[in-house]
Amino acid sequence: MEGDARFRVRYRIRAADAGEARARAEGIALEQTVEVPADVVPAGYVRDEIVGRIEALEPAGAGVFEAVISYSPDSAGEEVIQLFNVVFGNSSMQRGIRVVGLDPGPVIRARFGGARFGAAGLRRLTGRTEGGLIAAVIKPQGLGPGDLAAIAARCVAGGADIIKDDHGLTNQKMAPFAERLRAVADAVAGANARHGRQALYFVHVSGHSGDPVAEAFAAKEAGAGGVLLMPALLGFGLVRRLAADPDFGLPIMTHPSYTGSFVLSPDQGLSHAIMYGVFQRLAGSDISVFPNVGGRFGYTAEECRSIAEACRDPAGVGTPILPAPGGGMSVDRAADMAAMYGRDVVYLLGGSLLRHGPRIGEAVEAMRAALEAAEA
Amino acid sequence: MEGDARFRVRYRIRAADAGEARARAEGIALEQTVEVPADVVPAGYVRDEIVGRIEALEPAGAGVFEAVISYSPDSAGEEVIQLFNVVFGNSSMQRGIRVVGLDPGPVIRARFGGARFGAAGLRRLTGRTEGGLIAAVIKPQGLGPGDLAAIAARCVAGGADIIKDDHGLTNQKMAPFAERLRAVADAVAGANARHGRQALYFVHVSGHSGDPVAEAFAAKEAGAGGVLLMPALLGFGLVRRLAADPDFGLPIMTHPSYTGSFVLSPDQGLSHAIMYGVFQRLAGSDISVFPNVGGRFGYTAEECRSIAEACRDPAGVGTPILPAPGGGMSVDRAADMAAMYGRDVVYLLGGSLLRHGPRIGEAVEAMRAALEAAEA
Repeated sequence: MEGDARFRVRYRIRAADAGEARARAEGIALEQTVEVPADVVPAGYVRDEIVGRIEALEPAGAGVFEAVISYSPDSAGEEVIQLFNVVFGNSSMQRGIRVVGLDPGPVIRARFGGARFGAAGLRRLTGRTEGGLIAAVIKPQGLGPGDLAAIAARCVAGGADIIKDDHGLTNQKMAPFAERLRAVADAVAGANARHGRQALYFVHVSGHSGDPVAEAFAAKEAGAGGVLLMPALLGFGLVRRLAADPDFGLPIMTHPSYTGSFVLSPDQGLSHAIMYGVFQRLAGSDISVFPNVGGRFGYTAEECRSIAEACRDPAGVGTPILPAPGGGMSVDRAADMAAMYGRDVVYLLGGSLLRHGPRIGEAVEAMRAALEAAEA
Repeated sequence: MEGDARFRVRYRIRAADAGEARARAEGIALEQTVEVPADVVPAGYVRDEIVGRIEALEPAGAGVFEAVISYSPDSAGEEVIQLFNVVFGNSSMQRGIRVVGLDPGPVIRARFGGARFGAAGLRRLTGRTEGGLIAAVIKPQGLGPGDLAAIAARCVAGGADIIKDDHGLTNQKMAPFAERLRAVADAVAGANARHGRQALYFVHVSGHSGDPVAEAFAAKEAGAGGVLLMPALLGFGLVRRLAADPDFGLPIMTHPSYTGSFVLSPDQGLSHAIMYGVFQRLAGSDISVFPNVGGRFGYTAEECRSIAEACRDPAGVGTPILPAPGGGMSVDRAADMAAMYGRDVVYLLGGSLLRHGPRIGEAVEAMRAALEAAEA
């Protein structure tokens, strides 16, 4: 029965033959837990329960094997970063190891409840009961709070469901956090009232004060509808901390800045689905932003599809969440994107929107119309 | 003069020819700042100051170019994670881009003061005025506070300068943070008193309570001599927050868990010197742990040397810090390691120590003797 409580990680391992593959898998099982040589592992609980256990090892192509290693929930404890530390801490520094699957098992699943809102909650909060959601990004860095607020108001008028800060807006003097928060939250509230909308403003919380939790609560108090976080820079622990706190109670959007190195090498790091789907859900993200195929980034259609599937997999941790492809999104691509991603998705409209200047609201409206036509 | 305030990042860029290299460099300059197409960048301050500026672009081998792009300190503001976001946020998700240099310039250098203690401060705190420092790791995960404390006391008796938690010890039920902290801090203090030592205990702070700053202060109050942090999982912001706080005033050791994906691909990510040297110093680490050549990890001697140099470079940000190679460190390798790393270094003794059981202190002593012989 003890075995049933364990979580299982699937690693793709580069190895010349089955013998080397087994030696490398045994190395991972030790490295990620006790981090001592096999002969000095204390007998009893540590050896029997704590050390990783090779559950399966199969060839998976030329010079590649797949190992399933199970770990005790005791190793992860209650912390999401310690869970990730067990999954891929020190092994990240060994060549030719890629995490391609994670079966949380019952204990981890119960311990890390996932997202507070997820897809269903976001539909409730935004009133967008059908079809894709549109998130308009306010930018660029360098504008003041007033200019950013004006862009936000126009995007709400045009029908954006979400207004989000560009992730490059933190607490710089051009638009300090507190001023931007107040100006944009008020602008979004005003535009919601004037146009009968329920758009949510996701303000970027970056921990400038040294206390990101306090910043997130300040955002809530000022009327923000959610927070944007960069977990690769700010830490996944904060995502979990906020998602698990009923007093906070705002949705969380996670941004992929600084994550690319984990996924770009096909035989190292984390699979796209693990990084932008599984890990985000375990931490408690409601909306996982990732770079869309065909834009400025190096991710393929298949990789993007795998991310969306992991975000929405009914068998995943907690409630399904919304994938949010960004980069190169436009009216021209709306039909293709709707065909590719289906309906439970957030379309990020970024820099190209600004080309429309004061008519930016009409650009959002055009995107909505194009999506509705494609989804009809 | 404005140009002189800027910080400069050197990127290695994969490109077929000079034209593609320039287009990619221009893409980075936009992506890392305004994240909008060039034609919609607002004129004036945003275009003139905020957008990245290509300062140099040179071929650097077959299909590779090096670009130096300068950024305004205004883009980074006062936050170290926003600085890293500008250096390598979204560009991390584009193929064939590697950060290989960072010239902070005067403003960033003044704004991020670096380490509080550094090499000189650690020598003062430990009383180890000459030669390499020895840090003994207490482990494995699964032992209780009493067993870990006993190992710590023996290592102090043997002459370890630093006792550090294994990074896999967080707040698991087998050795909860508060209990482990108390037991090991007391054991180290007792052994220091008995043996006339000044060993420091670096307790691992992982943010289990949701408030890592409070945990770090609790560590100080309980008599810990420093904290161990995993910035890739917990966020570099916390390192900076603690290093900059005079009320905290303990040295910080940073652990490389979960960082490998950034450095293992030669044409993507961050160079070893940037990840384990430059970034650690900017954040405020006093001791930067990294995987040693010849152990279980995939780093070469040249890469390890480049890390040690970046940690100790007198021209780096703030005071020089101590590189701490770990993995496969042993008495047999002491002479080679001393020849390779010189004297301002912390040698991590990990799992192999445990092989000595109750005589672990003698193993530390033997390492000290071997190092002293090699350094003589």
